Amino acid sequence: MPTYTAPNADFDFVLHNVLNIQEQDIPGYEDLTQDFTSAVLEEAGKLARDVFQPINASGDQQGCVLENGVITTPDGFKEAFDAYREGGWNTLDVDTDYGGQGLGYVLASCVGEIFSSANMALTMYPGLTHGAISAIHAHGTDQQKQTFLPKMVDLAWSGTMNLTEPHCGTDLGLMRTKAEPQDDGSYKISGQKIFISAGDNDMTENVVHLVLAKIPGGPEGVKGISLFIVPKFLVNDDGSLGARNGVAVGNIEEKMGIHGNATCVMNYDEATGYLLGDAHKGMRAMFTMMNEARLGVAMQGVSQAEAAYQNALAYAKDRLQGRDVTGVKNPEGPADPLIVHPDIRRMLMNQKSFVEGARAFALWGAVMIDRAHKNEDAAADGLVSLLTPVLKGFLTDVGFDMTVQAQQIFGGHGYIEEWGMSQFTRDARIAMIYEGANGVQALDLVGRKMPKDGGKHVMAFFDMVKTFLTENKDNAALADFVGPLKEASKDLQAVLMHFMQAGMKNPNDALAGSTDALHMFGHVCLGLMWAKMAKAAQEALDAGTDNPEFYNTKITTGRYYMARWLPTNKTHMARAMSSSDVVMDLPAEAF
Amino acid sequence: MPTYTAPNADFDFVLHNVLNIQEQDIPGYEDLTQDFTSAVLEEAGKLARDVFQPINASGDQQGCVLENGVITTPDGFKEAFDAYREGGWNTLDVDTDYGGQGLGYVLASCVGEIFSSANMALTMYPGLTHGAISAIHAHGTDQQKQTFLPKMVDLAWSGTMNLTEPHCGTDLGLMRTKAEPQDDGSYKISGQKIFISAGDNDMTENVVHLVLAKIPGGPEGVKGISLFIVPKFLVNDDGSLGARNGVAVGNIEEKMGIHGNATCVMNYDEATGYLLGDAHKGMRAMFTMMNEARLGVAMQGVSQAEAAYQNALAYAKDRLQGRDVTGVKNPEGPADPLIVHPDIRRMLMNQKSFVEGARAFALWGAVMIDRAHKNEDAAADGLVSLLTPVLKGFLTDVGFDMTVQAQQIFGGHGYIEEWGMSQFTRDARIAMIYEGANGVQALDLVGRKMPKDGGKHVMAFFDMVKTFLTENKDNAALADFVGPLKEASKDLQAVLMHFMQAGMKNPNDALAGSTDALHMFGHVCLGLMWAKMAKAAQEALDAGTDNPEFYNTKITTGRYYMARWLPTNKTHMARAMSSSDVVMDLPAEAF
Repeated sequence: MPTYTAPNADFDFVLHNVLNIQEQDIPGYEDLTQDFTSAVLEEAGKLARDVFQPINASGDQQGCVLENGVITTPDGFKEAFDAYREGGWNTLDVDTDYGGQGLGYVLASCVGEIFSSANMALTMYPGLTHGAISAIHAHGTDQQKQTFLPKMVDLAWSGTMNLTEPHCGTDLGLMRTKAEPQDDGSYKISGQKIFISAGDNDMTENVVHLVLAKIPGGPEGVKGISLFIVPKFLVNDDGSLGARNGVAVGNIEEKMGIHGNATCVMNYDEATGYLLGDAHKGMRAMFTMMNEARLGVAMQGVSQAEAAYQNALAYAKDRLQGRDVTGVKNPEGPADPLIVHPDIRRMLMNQKSFVEGARAFALWGAVMIDRAHKNEDAAADGLVSLLTPVLKGFLTDVGFDMTVQAQQIFGGHGYIEEWGMSQFTRDARIAMIYEGANGVQALDLVGRKMPKDGGKHVMAFFDMVKTFLTENKDNAALADFVGPLKEASKDLQAVLMHFMQAGMKNPNDALAGSTDALHMFGHVCLGLMWAKMAKAAQEALDAGTDNPEFYNTKITTGRYYMARWLPTNKTHMARAMSSSDVVMDLPAEAF
Repeated sequence: MPTYTAPNADFDFVLHNVLNIQEQDIPGYEDLTQDFTSAVLEEAGKLARDVFQPINASGDQQGCVLENGVITTPDGFKEAFDAYREGGWNTLDVDTDYGGQGLGYVLASCVGEIFSSANMALTMYPGLTHGAISAIHAHGTDQQKQTFLPKMVDLAWSGTMNLTEPHCGTDLGLMRTKAEPQDDGSYKISGQKIFISAGDNDMTENVVHLVLAKIPGGPEGVKGISLFIVPKFLVNDDGSLGARNGVAVGNIEEKMGIHGNATCVMNYDEATGYLLGDAHKGMRAMFTMMNEARLGVAMQGVSQAEAAYQNALAYAKDRLQGRDVTGVKNPEGPADPLIVHPDIRRMLMNQKSFVEGARAFALWGAVMIDRAHKNEDAAADGLVSLLTPVLKGFLTDVGFDMTVQAQQIFGGHGYIEEWGMSQFTRDARIAMIYEGANGVQALDLVGRKMPKDGGKHVMAFFDMVKTFLTENKDNAALADFVGPLKEASKDLQAVLMHFMQAGMKNPNDALAGSTDALHMFGHVCLGLMWAKMAKAAQEALDAGTDNPEFYNTKITTGRYYMARWLPTNKTHMARAMSSSDVVMDLPAEAF
């Protein structure tokens, strides 16, 4: 059975040596001292390890059951959810006016990774509630906020997001769910939504659905979509629960993974809904929390890669098989541990260097989200909007691949459910799909985010990389980092320039290479993170430390990333620069 | 629910236009006219489509059940197995002396791909039997052959391979299963074997286990391993079944996929076994059929990618979502089909160009196996032995990736079991692991096969590529193929040269890049196949054909491979040429 230990030394390092959050002038960050964040993450790690992780495999096996319209979550989920709720783990970054602690999304992101590593399916219930809280907080009336937020922050009530319908996923303009205005200002919502994660549960008293629907007579397509609050139970004026609303779980889906999370077909039959934000501006309302939601999914990719890596590492140290070709390492034993073999190490170093770089990248993104929200910093907002598709697409694509490599280290045992490695792979797989499939992320990056505001944000990104390179060009300790980063950054710029020029004539030249560009961008970001981490580690070593091993390991791991991961961009570049004709030439009927 | 249609036009093309099997001077091939192979494959395709495929998803859902020591396979498996048996599908390439048709392994490989695409878990039962037949045929005494082969060829009895034990997978030298010699010349086999595919079933009267075990007093390690025939029921002198032997299924494993195949823990308790081949030469006996077994697994990788691709393609043509940015393609509909989008096409072209190239590569391997066996051609044997780890490792790694991409095209529906795309991914995953995990294939390639016979076979391979390049250097129709192939071949040679030189000083420099080299080798082989296919297609077009679309599509698909797949080697090369220090530097305890 797998185990999990929160990587708290790494969180410490990223938060305080690399991102230097104490030096950031962001409201709420003043409390985030190293002592404080360490204490918080230690507690989170304990609950994750002792309560969430032990029911991860059993939750996968049992799944959720729908009987007579009522969902039962797997054994232990309610108790774990209650412990999470009582610990206030969902309130860290929430507005203090509604019961939150106002501590910043960056800390919530660390905690999110921890719980998701331990039990992704379970962590999705509060995770989706958190997203719904953000939406109501940003767009709700005072009355809506007072009615819903305190209960949701307390996790007495949970929340969901309802976008997809059977015939429309990415293309929300095709939506059919209707919202008929009523005389009292409310709406009657009717239609079917599918793939609703955490659509219902037996852990909370009420479920607050945020539902996209069309008000008849509104504009066509996505411009006519509005967002509604549709509670499972209506709420009386005194805040108590009233009648059951016209919303029901039609079915739960049998999925490849995240079995502990109820993925529901939701049927709305004249359910009472309340407009959230402006009529016909539902897409805009959804988008204001998109960066946060997509960063959350990116973190799921990291979380499964981390958990899988920890177990692959333990197995590689424990399992005796074959001998080190350069000399026996375990002469007393019948064989050497797997970790002596270069190809096993290749896979472990792939995972380790990816996960640590990815964590730094994601937490940097979280700091930018905090800065954008709390400081109303437009530059930070522009940068994190640019990087959001990269975070989501790259970290979930590669995160999944890393769970596959972790599974591979187990040989045949990796394929047997009892060992738990299959679950990491199966659970991680969904993160590439939901919250905008990764191909859609690539389209968002190339078609929308890069050209946004005249390319201002992408230029700001490259300026930032360039500043780092210039500042460190003579730093001998960073020689293995500065050169490769410079080259990777240059290659990415060349591809983007090619997209701009070729894309003017034929947009397919950019779109056919969009996924390649997204991955290139991801590697440049992780390269930058590794260069910054190496610099921070070197500074810690130079200043004298009682833990030189940690910092030396960091530098060695970063060297691996620069030497063996960054060259991935050579392939992406060759693909992206080649004509899109080979992609588009074949008539559809000739396939 | 997924569907499947055998790609018979493609088999025809590869067999008769590319490999020109009718011109090969190989015994048994004289019967393989285009009319004949087409008729055979059409029949195989019908049985696969109508009988095997419809029980693929239900077999996955039901799995195998063990009750009171008896295994029950999923509904419909026995009927489908009987139909397969009655059609003689397992006898195509078997020696006519024992009930086979003597038609060559190349045709059996086509049929293997077809049935495996339709139902991999079910096809493994006859597949493993086929491997056991080959082993007994190669190493058995006349009496053993007469006792076991006719029944196995007829599929009245099935066969298995028993190698792995709980503590030893790759490192078979650690084996504990014992074989005590008896006065009558038989042995008493005792021990536990795990991960035994098709370990037992309710479809055949007897199961003939081939078991690796150690005769006490023999040499240490792998040099002291012998191979035994251990039937589930002993066989009387008249060929009828006698007493139950001391072998029992201890458990069946819960796995990620291939649920319809019973993966068994087999307990041997003084079971009667018969030495197959020479004492202590069991590894050698196993290795004589390794090329064939590994090619079979390679074909599984291709088969799942093909089946997944077919369904992804159908979905991409059917599902309406978004609009073509270069102009609406389906003005009557609410949206355009997915296939108009460049990133969807990228994934489809990836799959299509990989699968068709992989099929040609695998069938070329099958021809070499036939030539090696039937013509006793040492050069063919050397070449296919060199390429076997490439076939197995590359085609199953990339085959799995392609099932993931096919699943991705379905968006959220790809994650729902009902749509069947998850099963292709879960089933394909095992092919990377069993029959030697792919890291072991890379080690076999770099550490054993390349240096074998003074590098003679690897030089023969490059000579063959060079000959093709020289012969076609002025062929304008092949310009998009010859250049990229030449460069990829040169890059691969540079890496192998680097391994030889650097590996002399430090073997880790070669081993840390072994998987990269294996993938480079794979891309060069597929590049060669595509160049040959493009040439054959151009020749067919030049000669005049009533199906120009097929050949034009072939050339366009090949162009995609050369432009967008081959550059993968740039990354592999950069990794393989970089020092292994970054892979090996970290002390195990610092991870």
